[in-house]
Amino acid sequence: MENVNRYDVWECALAGPSAGNPFKDEWIKLCVSSRNESCETDGFYDGDGRYIVRFMPSFEGEYEYKITASFLTDEVKGRFGVLPARESNHGPVRCANTFALAHDDGTRHISLGTTCYVWELQNDELIEQTFESLKNGPFNKIRFCIFPKHYVYNLHEPRSYPYVGTPMDSSVLTKQNFNQYAGKAEGNSWDFSRFNPEHFRHIEKCIERLRDMEIQADLILFHPYDRWGFSLMTEEEDLFYIDYVIARFSAYSNVWWSLANEYDLMRKSDKQWSAIADEICQKDVYRHMRSIHNCKSIYDFNRPWCTHCSIQRNETYTTVENTDKWRARYKKPVVLDEICYEGDIEFGWGNITGEEMTRRFWETALRGGYPGHGETMTGHNDILWWSHGGKLYGESPARIAFLKQILEKVPGNGLRLDDFMRTDELRAVPSDRAYKGKLFLFYYSFMRPGSRLMHIDDTTVFDVYELDTWNMTQEYRGSHKGEFRVELPKRQYMAIMLTAR
Amino acid sequence: MENVNRYDVWECALAGPSAGNPFKDEWIKLCVSSRNESCETDGFYDGDGRYIVRFMPSFEGEYEYKITASFLTDEVKGRFGVLPARESNHGPVRCANTFALAHDDGTRHISLGTTCYVWELQNDELIEQTFESLKNGPFNKIRFCIFPKHYVYNLHEPRSYPYVGTPMDSSVLTKQNFNQYAGKAEGNSWDFSRFNPEHFRHIEKCIERLRDMEIQADLILFHPYDRWGFSLMTEEEDLFYIDYVIARFSAYSNVWWSLANEYDLMRKSDKQWSAIADEICQKDVYRHMRSIHNCKSIYDFNRPWCTHCSIQRNETYTTVENTDKWRARYKKPVVLDEICYEGDIEFGWGNITGEEMTRRFWETALRGGYPGHGETMTGHNDILWWSHGGKLYGESPARIAFLKQILEKVPGNGLRLDDFMRTDELRAVPSDRAYKGKLFLFYYSFMRPGSRLMHIDDTTVFDVYELDTWNMTQEYRGSHKGEFRVELPKRQYMAIMLTAR
Repeated sequence: MENVNRYDVWECALAGPSAGNPFKDEWIKLCVSSRNESCETDGFYDGDGRYIVRFMPSFEGEYEYKITASFLTDEVKGRFGVLPARESNHGPVRCANTFALAHDDGTRHISLGTTCYVWELQNDELIEQTFESLKNGPFNKIRFCIFPKHYVYNLHEPRSYPYVGTPMDSSVLTKQNFNQYAGKAEGNSWDFSRFNPEHFRHIEKCIERLRDMEIQADLILFHPYDRWGFSLMTEEEDLFYIDYVIARFSAYSNVWWSLANEYDLMRKSDKQWSAIADEICQKDVYRHMRSIHNCKSIYDFNRPWCTHCSIQRNETYTTVENTDKWRARYKKPVVLDEICYEGDIEFGWGNITGEEMTRRFWETALRGGYPGHGETMTGHNDILWWSHGGKLYGESPARIAFLKQILEKVPGNGLRLDDFMRTDELRAVPSDRAYKGKLFLFYYSFMRPGSRLMHIDDTTVFDVYELDTWNMTQEYRGSHKGEFRVELPKRQYMAIMLTAR
Repeated sequence: MENVNRYDVWECALAGPSAGNPFKDEWIKLCVSSRNESCETDGFYDGDGRYIVRFMPSFEGEYEYKITASFLTDEVKGRFGVLPARESNHGPVRCANTFALAHDDGTRHISLGTTCYVWELQNDELIEQTFESLKNGPFNKIRFCIFPKHYVYNLHEPRSYPYVGTPMDSSVLTKQNFNQYAGKAEGNSWDFSRFNPEHFRHIEKCIERLRDMEIQADLILFHPYDRWGFSLMTEEEDLFYIDYVIARFSAYSNVWWSLANEYDLMRKSDKQWSAIADEICQKDVYRHMRSIHNCKSIYDFNRPWCTHCSIQRNETYTTVENTDKWRARYKKPVVLDEICYEGDIEFGWGNITGEEMTRRFWETALRGGYPGHGETMTGHNDILWWSHGGKLYGESPARIAFLKQILEKVPGNGLRLDDFMRTDELRAVPSDRAYKGKLFLFYYSFMRPGSRLMHIDDTTVFDVYELDTWNMTQEYRGSHKGEFRVELPKRQYMAIMLTAR
């Protein structure tokens, strides 16, 4: 009997017709059942007369399967065995409780994301560079688009297109005139009923490699930065695309669905977004994380289909400082997917310093949210991490790695702000009652106190650590109880950690 | 005939009784009249049988005066002449229009204040250091208290007390226990009906020297940082004190009345504050600037007695960025008297960097407000500018001087935000319609754009200047019209100034 590891992909390919339009005219379905679960899921046409069904088992043990298809007269039946998960695969990310994330197997997931919108549509060399950067970096989630991107610094052609057809002549584009072509479809000729399997096959290889690096693939299904017309398809075409994406990608344990990058810049109605969300809820049997990302107007994450908040900050000055307000408003995990990018480009969303990015990460994490990174540093042949991936030049990734180490020391599901906080500090505690009083994290942000007076209670003995969040040092400052003063080096970005003995 | 310069102080001292309690038992009044003004104002007892009346003439020409007093059987009459003002005295600061300040003679006043709560109650050497620092610095307003201050770093005795009596024994005070004595009067013994003229005489000499340096004296009448009971006097005692202060100080052209530092930390009712304000409105014939400063809860500056807003920021993250909102709410000049201090002390209100202070100054000024500085740098024998004056060690004063130079180039009454502003810049224009289109100031705050695309209109030729607000440089970048791009050095705190040819 064939075996597969829990949370990995079991796949079966069958030969079938290639005449006509198999994407539209044919169908293939998979039914699986085991002692613990049973479900029915759509397969897809992969081109060249090849039909594929995929399944991600959530349990160990023996599974039976049954494949039916428009072109099969008899069901194809069989069995496969599910072995324990590989060490690196903890299953899909879920909501662990109101505000926290964890993998399906219960492993805590401290989401520290980054954004590279179309890294996977670049050339092989650049893609390999991105994988290398991710391997050496702190990020465990990457947001990217299935459709190519048209915008400043994004004028060249993608490596492939999602549909069969021909694109507009992009040789006319310049940094000056590109905006005239944005959100239009003139000059393109696509058959929205015929996918280009190679495009999707390439993306799923990327998803799979990310999975094996324990990095979540936060897939952006629609976005407005378009010159091909992929943002202007009909409702029916949108759902046809969604079904294909789910059939191909949903069996990868690391997939998240992001309905859009900046949904509010697109010409879709609220009803259309809801229809897309409904389709995903119905077709994705694995219940991957689902959300939608804004430009100006934050989506109503109270809607049941949203598993979490996916927020682009929409104020210039107070940004991640709203994390705790968003928690209170939406009562779901708060993922801040865009908090400006470390960079030096023209636009305010892409020119903050490494210090400010790092500060925003700490603010978000201590307020009980999950921050997201991005980088727009120029000077490297117009290859910017934010869109193209490649190399990281910024100063924040190393600091984000340091933050990750600290967050991993927090017991339980994560942090929340303490009720007993002064206005000139962030004071975070473990969010779980079980760990109440066990750890305190004080963060001083842009302030630079010369010392701080501490007084948690009169009896607990705390080990005291001075953290320099910028210089990435942790210094043991002895054990103390009752009221005690911690001298600090009068620099910005300092923190104090207390752990109860 | 005796002569005095316009806006300077004409004074007449008369001998009178010293028996009993002259502060309470006697009175002296001055009537003056000229072609342009006439008024009646109270004089005061200066000790040692000396009674003084003072007057600040607002017009040139001949004045008649008449002095009456409880101890005079006949009026004392006479005349004095008023010569043109000295070059350094432009008269009291007034509201020039809804949001701007100007001196009585029409000279624009760009208020750039600082805070040294009890600098004038230190020893002579330290006071001279403060005058020297002010002489070399950019500040044209200084906030300080008439009563001494009790707080951390403020445990020693003042050089003098406002009343006759004896203070508590301060040898018991330590950095640890000082708070137990705050806002209490035990151990003190004062006669609140007998002022100590030496205390006030010394302060008025300081006010006069400030006046001659063209620095406004923003006098704080009450404050909560007290261990002597001066914050706990009765309503009647408060008004008795106010009358004395007005009689002594109001003839100095540079006086502003600040009813309190942090009124909301004091035990006075709203009615009491209103009574104090009423008394000032009635007794101060010169109508000096009047406001009141908060800790947490911003006062309702819509009240008619307030000439302007005097605000301590009450949020940690968004502070001076509210300047334009406060303008809209109160429709009065917005003076931000506390926006945190450049320093390194324990508390968040006193440990921001020079960069952040400078940024807050620019934000305030471009949003059409008047920012205020303060400094709490340790390491100098516990002498901190914020309370004691002395030397300035911070990095912001030099940058504030640079800002002042730029603001002086703005035609008319000042700046306001342009309606056509993007979210990733501040765009300020002259507030007066007469200068519409003549000047544009773009400020990029903590962002570090590599360039900015400009397009004001198609016809105006602008001289373009790159301003580095931190490194204090102004570089001419040529003249341009229509759409043009300004390259920038990818650093924080840059600005662009356009002036129409």
